[in-house]
Amino acid sequence: MDNFDFYNPVKIIFGKDQLKRLRDLIPTNQKVLILYGGGSIHKNGVYKQAVAALKNHEVYEFSGIEPNPRYETAMKAVEIVREKKIDMLLAIGGGSVIDAAKFIAVAALYEGTDPWDILTGATKPAGSVPIGVILTLPATGSEMNSGSVITKESTHEKLAFMSPLSFPKFSFLLPEAAATLPKKQIANGVVDAFVHVIEQYVNYPVNTPLQDRFAESILQTLVEEGPKVYANPADYDAMSNLMLSATIALNGLIGMAVPQDWSIHGIGHELTALHEIDHARTLAIVLPGLWKIFRKEKKEKILQYGKRVWQITEGSEEERVDEAIARTVEFFESLGVKTKLKDYNVQEDSIEKIAVRFEERGWKAFGDRRLVTPQKVREILMLQLG
Amino acid sequence: MDNFDFYNPVKIIFGKDQLKRLRDLIPTNQKVLILYGGGSIHKNGVYKQAVAALKNHEVYEFSGIEPNPRYETAMKAVEIVREKKIDMLLAIGGGSVIDAAKFIAVAALYEGTDPWDILTGATKPAGSVPIGVILTLPATGSEMNSGSVITKESTHEKLAFMSPLSFPKFSFLLPEAAATLPKKQIANGVVDAFVHVIEQYVNYPVNTPLQDRFAESILQTLVEEGPKVYANPADYDAMSNLMLSATIALNGLIGMAVPQDWSIHGIGHELTALHEIDHARTLAIVLPGLWKIFRKEKKEKILQYGKRVWQITEGSEEERVDEAIARTVEFFESLGVKTKLKDYNVQEDSIEKIAVRFEERGWKAFGDRRLVTPQKVREILMLQLG
Repeated sequence: MDNFDFYNPVKIIFGKDQLKRLRDLIPTNQKVLILYGGGSIHKNGVYKQAVAALKNHEVYEFSGIEPNPRYETAMKAVEIVREKKIDMLLAIGGGSVIDAAKFIAVAALYEGTDPWDILTGATKPAGSVPIGVILTLPATGSEMNSGSVITKESTHEKLAFMSPLSFPKFSFLLPEAAATLPKKQIANGVVDAFVHVIEQYVNYPVNTPLQDRFAESILQTLVEEGPKVYANPADYDAMSNLMLSATIALNGLIGMAVPQDWSIHGIGHELTALHEIDHARTLAIVLPGLWKIFRKEKKEKILQYGKRVWQITEGSEEERVDEAIARTVEFFESLGVKTKLKDYNVQEDSIEKIAVRFEERGWKAFGDRRLVTPQKVREILMLQLG
Repeated sequence: MDNFDFYNPVKIIFGKDQLKRLRDLIPTNQKVLILYGGGSIHKNGVYKQAVAALKNHEVYEFSGIEPNPRYETAMKAVEIVREKKIDMLLAIGGGSVIDAAKFIAVAALYEGTDPWDILTGATKPAGSVPIGVILTLPATGSEMNSGSVITKESTHEKLAFMSPLSFPKFSFLLPEAAATLPKKQIANGVVDAFVHVIEQYVNYPVNTPLQDRFAESILQTLVEEGPKVYANPADYDAMSNLMLSATIALNGLIGMAVPQDWSIHGIGHELTALHEIDHARTLAIVLPGLWKIFRKEKKEKILQYGKRVWQITEGSEEERVDEAIARTVEFFESLGVKTKLKDYNVQEDSIEKIAVRFEERGWKAFGDRRLVTPQKVREILMLQLG
């Protein structure tokens, strides 16, 4: 096994009637800035409960954080943090709000000219305002990791940073609050978590049976519980199983000592940046094409995945690889998540644009074995055109 | 899913050539007390590497911590911590040394008359000296949890405490160092980790598919990798897989929101206290008897375990339960771990003594559903007499 570090100090508080504990987690002399997106936290009652629990705190709020959270929006919240001398950020919602909170928290303490430098990697964050999370949407895993993805509207750039300073201090996981989500968001959450696992698991074998089985455990649970939640978001047990799976999919556990790819995400981000396709849907588009193009390189793990997640045991190796890809596509489509570019009105000219963006950015080859060249991106997306 | 909290801030540093990083983890102005057991850390080179990494620190040492670490021994180390104003404890070895370190760390800061009160539960620890760990023996999981089990020699009592103050700050996991272990200790480690999982998994179903599969992932890995390590402790990859499995078996992950039993441990501790049988071996003795006595109450999970860990799919439910128990016993015995009391020269009179000890202690019924009465303890142990 390769050497690795694992560290994840996030306190998870899972379940029902938990939010009253907020007051014990944030000292009353601290000023809190509540961050959220649209109105869903009013609809699901979480806003009211959070504010009630913090009735003895000085509380400010900042709303309007969008999906694929914008640098431009986050910088407005940074001003409030600085001006009001905020001690604690409380992100309520899903991955977008949490990602924004992580960036706002480090940007507020950044002493250079432009905190965007943290995202380009030109500088590392030197400090962070503490963050707490109330998760109402199972998907990104941001509630239990130290990563954040931010989009700059002016340049259509979507970049990520990670910092050990950015782990939330605590995250409430509230399956009940997710019961009122639109089905589209639930489907996105299932696919997002699924592909997070795939990026860490379907690469090449390195004799890590425990991590492999943990990855398969999450995938199997998503395959079983995802459709239940999609059919009935008020199924508390199924939603609980989905929410826990999505959180653990990207908290470092299954990533220990294994190769990680993330090229599905790399290509998907471009589709979101250019066409505003939901993040999860871009992953569902890219994955089948990428596996077809790299079927030889990923063969052993695709076969293992097919056998353990989909019980595919018959046929030649090539047939089993095909079936594993087909079953995956079928699973996404069963959740209403389309996997072809034309389903999203994206035409061939966009494929060329995307390939050129990678070339211009100097991404000559990325992925776990640096095999994904701009030319391969072209081939992958052409297969998924429709 | 039931409500739960999860929190585990231990930093894991896994692999080869890692110990030089010790100097970055402990500020040089801190006084360090190295704790260890016998001479194995001299044999495997770890002592030398640790001392070299701490060459700019003021370092003291305390050795002779025994298996089933003694209160009486720990209290001698407490004196050193107080006298030398130690800032950091560094436990090198396996679970016994780590458990002792956790107790020494809270006892040194205890202001009452007798720190034993922490173990009886009469008081909670108010503070702890920070602890670092260098793990050289896969088994107990103590390197990544907040629990400690201590034995009082004078009264033959073996008690446990847990405190969020007792998580190690960091734990090095060194598969290489474990290569020189006696086979008996390796077998004990495999069985100990195995039964840790069982206590959190083979109880009754509560619709936690992810936690169940994680538990099965660890068991399957122990079943595959345990015999490899037993045959050849120098097999680095197999030892790595075993060590990681044992650590995660008891770090809280698989215990989220599930019923936990721990009556195998409860009964096993008495066998160790009275007859000094190795902890893991007591678990291997008690488990088959306990499953036979509670086969009805544990039926659904024993069947699931049999199917997923041992691929037992044929026969009636009763036959499959029998086979699951038989395969488990076979697995333990294949590692040289005997499962009958007479294998350890324990006779019938001891069974009565143990039952009476539970009665005298007022343990009227324990386990996940409070069904293990002193009478059931008699029945369980009678089945395992030989």
